[in-house]
Amino acid sequence: MGTEPHISQTKVRVRYAETDQMGVVYHANYFIWFEVGRVELMRQAGLDYRDMEREEGCLVVVVEATARYKSPARYDNELTIHTHIRSVRGSIIRFAYQITYCETLLCEGETTHIVVGRDMKRKPLPEKYAKRFADLAHPME
Amino acid sequence: MGTEPHISQTKVRVRYAETDQMGVVYHANYFIWFEVGRVELMRQAGLDYRDMEREEGCLVVVVEATARYKSPARYDNELTIHTHIRSVRGSIIRFAYQITYCETLLCEGETTHIVVGRDMKRKPLPEKYAKRFADLAHPME
Amino acid sequence: MGTEPHISQTKVRVRYAETDQMGVVYHANYFIWFEVGRVELMRQAGLDYRDMEREEGCLVVVVEATARYKSPARYDNELTIHTHIRSVRGSIIRFAYQITYCETLLCEGETTHIVVGRDMKRKPLPEKYAKRFADLAHPME
Amino acid sequence: MGTEPHISQTKVRVRYAETDQMGVVYHANYFIWFEVGRVELMRQAGLDYRDMEREEGCLVVVVEATARYKSPARYDNELTIHTHIRSVRGSIIRFAYQITYCETLLCEGETTHIVVGRDMKRKPLPEKYAKRFADLAHPME
Repeated sequence: MGTEPHISQTKVRVRYAETDQMGVVYHANYFIWFEVGRVELMRQAGLDYRDMEREEGCLVVVVEATARYKSPARYDNELTIHTHIRSVRGSIIRFAYQITYCETLLCEGETTHIVVGRDMKRKPLPEKYAKRFADLAHPME
Repeated sequence: MGTEPHISQTKVRVRYAETDQMGVVYHANYFIWFEVGRVELMRQAGLDYRDMEREEGCLVVVVEATARYKSPARYDNELTIHTHIRSVRGSIIRFAYQITYCETLLCEGETTHIVVGRDMKRKPLPEKYAKRFADLAHPME
Repeated sequence: MGTEPHISQTKVRVRYAETDQMGVVYHANYFIWFEVGRVELMRQAGLDYRDMEREEGCLVVVVEATARYKSPARYDNELTIHTHIRSVRGSIIRFAYQITYCETLLCEGETTHIVVGRDMKRKPLPEKYAKRFADLAHPME
Repeated sequence: MGTEPHISQTKVRVRYAETDQMGVVYHANYFIWFEVGRVELMRQAGLDYRDMEREEGCLVVVVEATARYKSPARYDNELTIHTHIRSVRGSIIRFAYQITYCETLLCEGETTHIVVGRDMKRKPLPEKYAKRFADLAHPME
């Protein structure tokens, strides 16, 4: 039915600073990579989060974040971040992520965001972005 | 019936490095504070995570982590991390957290962990720790 | 002649997130601790960096930072950050640091800062702060 | 005389997590990027730091690090890290870095490293690496 979301892919290489004394990546770093995935998804869709902040005064704040860890990432691994938009409703946007190394799934997660103004009060997503996000969530509809 | 878990409290002050250009704390940092809370809960219970790693060869790895953000933390705020053990079953331990500033709840979350050896294979929690963790989860039983 | 600077001391405990796969603290973290030391030095002197930013519109930006590493810090070590002001001249402030564990010196360093406004242009340090900083650099003069 | 060092170039994009409430990159992050530059310089020279740790038991630890900040990096900027080896003498290696955005120099710095074994005691750089590093420092000699 053509309602598969657009999945963006982007790569990051594990930095030494991101490892911990267990010899694997410290778990909080995956949330930073999720954000790299979000920004790249937007960029690939012709949207620029920086402009959204600067020109529209729209901040997209995280209200919930979850990660499930399947297998550890290690130093110097080149990882792929797969990101898609799960839903857009009013000022609420939900993203989902998978992080893989070679063909192995290392981590999957979701984040939920709301759009606020510089006063930290909720505001609607500007029309231009709302439409584009909806297209990404359901490209063919 | 006296089954309230023991809740540990510890304080952290927000560092400049932990803020982002929104002027609030970057969301991934709360997972680092959750870990500070876990370690302090153990310390207050007479357990030392460092020894557990070094002497018992037990690594407590994160398999799932969730945070829900209610209100932003800001630079130099002195925050309180409230941590308790939600359950201990075999090699699976679940912690829950609340982070507050003054009387305001900023963030709450949970993490699930499994105990593994240096080979990253699952192993049972050593008796001494299992008993102590169970006591913390249900202090009066 | 009583020109020894005031040295502030503050403590931090090494977090798991701050270690790397060598089993010691990743070197960039010391610069974050230097900042913790600066803020506490100011607080002990009755000054609040947060107010300086918010009320005076003064940002104290780093223009140079150096650290020399003598011995590694390890997970859960409780470290002491010793901070003093080396000099204050116009809008230029120089701090120096030592980080110790028990009686062992782990790291020492210096940072140089200039005061700028929100437009990132240099501006003089407000009188109240200039005087207090000078007192800290040379308490008895 | 052909003694210009080989300069490697690699790119990083500024992450939201790397900004602070001044709206620019937090200064400690440049040291992490210096490390990205070192690793890429080695990779471009056919050396793999991961192997050096794993197969040779050689850890390259930082003994001194300096950065001078000229102009701030901002969110989403794509930066270029220029890295070269300044000198190799026994177990001491010195790297130098410049970080640029478009044609603007944002930061320059140096790091000094020594080679140690897993026991944290100094050991000579293995022959294969010593020769290759010397070639990078003085490619034509």
